[in-house]
Parts: sequence; structure tokens; C-alpha cells
Amino acid sequence: MTLDLNTHILIVGLGLIGGSYAKALKKKGFSVNALDTRQEAITYALEEGIIDKGYTEPSDEAFEDADLLIFALYPRVFVDFVNTHQHKFKKNAILTDVTGVKGCIVYEIQSELREDLEFIAAHPMAGREVYGVENSDDRIFHNANYIVVPTEKNRPETVDLCKLLGAVLGFSRISTLSPEEHDDMIAFVSQLTHVIAISLMTCNDSTHLVDYTGDSFRDLTRIARINDKMWSELFHLNRDALLRQMDIFEEEFHSLRAILESGDTDAMREKMRLSTSRRAMFDIQNKTK
Amino acid sequence: MTLDLNTHILIVGLGLIGGSYAKALKKKGFSVNALDTRQEAITYALEEGIIDKGYTEPSDEAFEDADLLIFALYPRVFVDFVNTHQHKFKKNAILTDVTGVKGCIVYEIQSELREDLEFIAAHPMAGREVYGVENSDDRIFHNANYIVVPTEKNRPETVDLCKLLGAVLGFSRISTLSPEEHDDMIAFVSQLTHVIAISLMTCNDSTHLVDYTGDSFRDLTRIARINDKMWSELFHLNRDALLRQMDIFEEEFHSLRAILESGDTDAMREKMRLSTSRRAMFDIQNKTK
Repeated sequence: MTLDLNTHILIVGLGLIGGSYAKALKKKGFSVNALDTRQEAITYALEEGIIDKGYTEPSDEAFEDADLLIFALYPRVFVDFVNTHQHKFKKNAILTDVTGVKGCIVYEIQSELREDLEFIAAHPMAGREVYGVENSDDRIFHNANYIVVPTEKNRPETVDLCKLLGAVLGFSRISTLSPEEHDDMIAFVSQLTHVIAISLMTCNDSTHLVDYTGDSFRDLTRIARINDKMWSELFHLNRDALLRQMDIFEEEFHSLRAILESGDTDAMREKMRLSTSRRAMFDIQNKTK
Repeated sequence: MTLDLNTHILIVGLGLIGGSYAKALKKKGFSVNALDTRQEAITYALEEGIIDKGYTEPSDEAFEDADLLIFALYPRVFVDFVNTHQHKFKKNAILTDVTGVKGCIVYEIQSELREDLEFIAAHPMAGREVYGVENSDDRIFHNANYIVVPTEKNRPETVDLCKLLGAVLGFSRISTLSPEEHDDMIAFVSQLTHVIAISLMTCNDSTHLVDYTGDSFRDLTRIARINDKMWSELFHLNRDALLRQMDIFEEEFHSLRAILESGDTDAMREKMRLSTSRRAMFDIQNKTK
């Protein structure tokens, strides 16, 4: 299968990310249908012209044309959905997803999938602090990362198709990781940062401090507004990797505490110079991408 | 003394903040002189027209007109400078500063100051990750906080003059705190956030992760590019308050770790909802200011 304007796409789960996919794909001229249990989501998307057909029930009709199924659901809902409804999927269809954790779902789905179907996992690293198709916006993909997460069950051409999907959606950086590499990386750069932001907001009642905050506190707590249902599930599904990263961070934080307490200004400055040079390299790499 | 266009202002220390003060004050029509040991800084500022006169030596002439002296120096340099040169200051002059810590300098300076002089401490909560007058920009004060930090040695009219200075500089929120309140607050909203950002950059070699980071990691580490000389001094001078805030944060972080490990999703969601509601209130308060 190739990805072209004859490819019929079905988005399952028309929330913020599903809706943003629909917007990006329609703009490029694709035929996009969507399935969501929320009638308002489907009505909104039809009115806005970001889908061609909408379904609120997983009827046979919803799936009959779909060459490419994109699942934008919560992780466990996604696994259960595929198990329950895969007998209705079009022969030789390709499945992909947007799930933020991989190891705990990819192998399970692939091992129980119909022989003719293929699931290629992907993680679009984009989001907003608001929910629902009504807030969807495909500009969130620009300057963002799209990670394809293949296993040995995936054919090279399907990996390429998924990369092409990332490019069509408008992502600026597209890469490939194994499920294990993905989950370790996500535990560090995304989940740990959310745990930190939450801790900062919950460790002190800071609401009276709004007059006194500079950009730093605002930056570090922006992501403390969090969808508790989705993120508690993502944390739980990636628990071991996240615990490992939390321990690494806490050990480092604690060693900075020891340096501060001892009054060893030289050691503190050395840590600051390392942090500065790494962050500077990070900025340079970002700019040259 | 009142603050008006006849007030002669001397800025001591023409770096990023001193230069930004000069730009803001000149735009409003004030007469601004500056003293900085760096000849290039003075030359640049004269060429750009952001100061009227510049000095590279603390000569008698540099101080003779100055009704208001604004010190934009490192904390210990500032204290030493006042002790060494205050005999040259104009009679009845007012001194103010931009220092990020207060308790450890305000009382010391006030207790050793000439009888006719008055020091009113202030903290402009604004900055950039770049240095020097060449990067100065008074727009960093817009939508930022200016904190006046009086003690019982300050006259009410001097407190008002300092608040007026904050307004003239273009700050949008001007408030008053005691030195102790200021230092506790700053330990939490500014210093702790910098320790966290440093720890995030130094706990893992993340330079290979640039392809995979979303906005959250970028937000949480923006301030990891840090002036090690200045910040190590600020940390050290506010050590007790910062250690206290680090302990509060670490305890909370550790309790989130315990919740994650135990698999208690309800407890995790409760933490997430608290963090979300606090951050939401914070956004609302910011908007209505």
C-alpha cells in the first residue's frame, strides 16, 4: 500500500489530536472519515468541512473503505477497540496510532492482529493544554517531532508510509526509535518534566505568588495543567521507565543540594557551566534542523 | 526628594539590566549617566544615545550630580562599592538596586550608610539569557514584576519614589515585600526553578535527544543557560531559604514517586487535578492583572 490521494483514511477518536490530523489531511486533499462516540464532535467536524463522513458507532460501514486507520484514543481503549472490532477492518488495511507510550501496547496489538493487517506505531510529539476537536489546530505539528516506532513485525515499506504520513501532516522532524528507546526517551523528556511541573504546583500553595513570578516559574509550570485521566494512564503504562528517570533526576537534584549546603561555589559553578553548555548545544542543534 | 525630569540619575553597572534601565529612562526624558569599568559598555551606550555621560572610574565627578543612584552590580560587589565610595555621593542622595537577594545585603548596607543617604531596595524580576548593555532591551520590563523591599529604616516617601521608578521603567506589576518575604518567595519561584532546570540538563547527557523533545523539555530547561558567576553567588547568599524550598519540593516529588510506584491511579489523578486547578487560577489571575 502507498499513501496517496486515493488512500481512504479513517480517524478513530476525533479529539484534539484526531481533529488536528483531520485538518492537516483535508488541507492536502485526502478523503478523511472519522469515528467518535461524541455526536457533537462529528457534527462540528462535518460543519467545519474537516471530515467527509462521520460515524458515532463502529458499524461495518464505518470501516469498509478505510485503507489507513489512525487511532487517536487512550492507550487501553485503543487496545480493546482493535481486539473487539478488527474483524470489520478492510482487508490489508494499515493501522497507526498517536499513543504516547509504546512498549506496553505495540507488541500486544501486533501479536493479536489479523494476519493481513499491519500496525505501525507512531508518536506525534505535539499537544495543547486544551481538549476536543473544537480546539484542534494542525499548526501544532509545525516545528514538532514525529516518531515512528517499528518492530520486526513491520515491513520497511510500511515504515516508509508512516514516515510519509508524518511529513504530510507537517511535522518538521521525523525519526525512528524502537519501542524501548521511545519509552525511555519519553519518560525523560516528557513524563519526568510533567512530574516536576506537578510537584512544583502541589508542593506549595503558590496561588498568592502570582504577583511575584517571573518567566521561569511560568515556564516550568505551564504543563502543570494536565489531563489527569490521560496522563495518569500514560504514567502508569510507562511506570518502570519513569521511575528510573525520576531516580536519576532526584539523585542529581540531591547532589546539587549537597553542593549548595557545603558552600562549594566552584562545584556549583561547574554544574551551571555544564548545564549551560548542554543547553546551548541543544539550541544550536534545534536551529540547524 | 521626588522623581521628576530634573532628577539626575547615575546607573552604576551598565550590563543587561543597567542598560535596559538606561534605555527606559532616556525614553521618558530623564538625564542618565552611567559608571562601568568596561570602556566598551560606556562607548556603546554613548553611541546609542542611551546615556548622557559615562565614566569608567568612580571619580568624584561621576557622583557629584547624582540624586538617584541605581546599582546594577553583583551583590557582594555592590556592598563593597557602597562602603568604599559613599563619601563621594551627593548629599541626601537616594540609592536603589536590582539585586536578586535582599536579606543578606539590605540590612548591612543600611546600617553602614551615611546618615543623610537612604537606600531603598528593589528587585526588577526581568532578565534574558544574554548579557551586556549590547543586549539590553527595556521591553523585558513589560508584563514583569517590580518588587520594592523596604525596611523600617525607609521613609514612606522613599518607598513611593521607588514604586514610581518601577512604573516609569514600564513594569506592569509593582508590589512591596519585606526582605524575608522576598527571599523566601524568590527561593521558591526563581532559584528552585533554576536548580530544577540545571538538574534536568546535568542528570542525563541529553544532547542526542534534541530530535525527540517536545515543548515541555524545552520550557523546563530554557533557564538552564545560566550566568554561573552571578547565580552561584545568588544561591549562596540565599542558601537557607533555597535549601528549605528544595526540601519541600523534593518531599513532594518523592511522594509522587511513591504514588506512581504503588499504582494508586486515583491518588495520582488527585495530585494532577490539584496542580491543574492551581495553575488555572494562576492563569486567570495573570490575565486579570
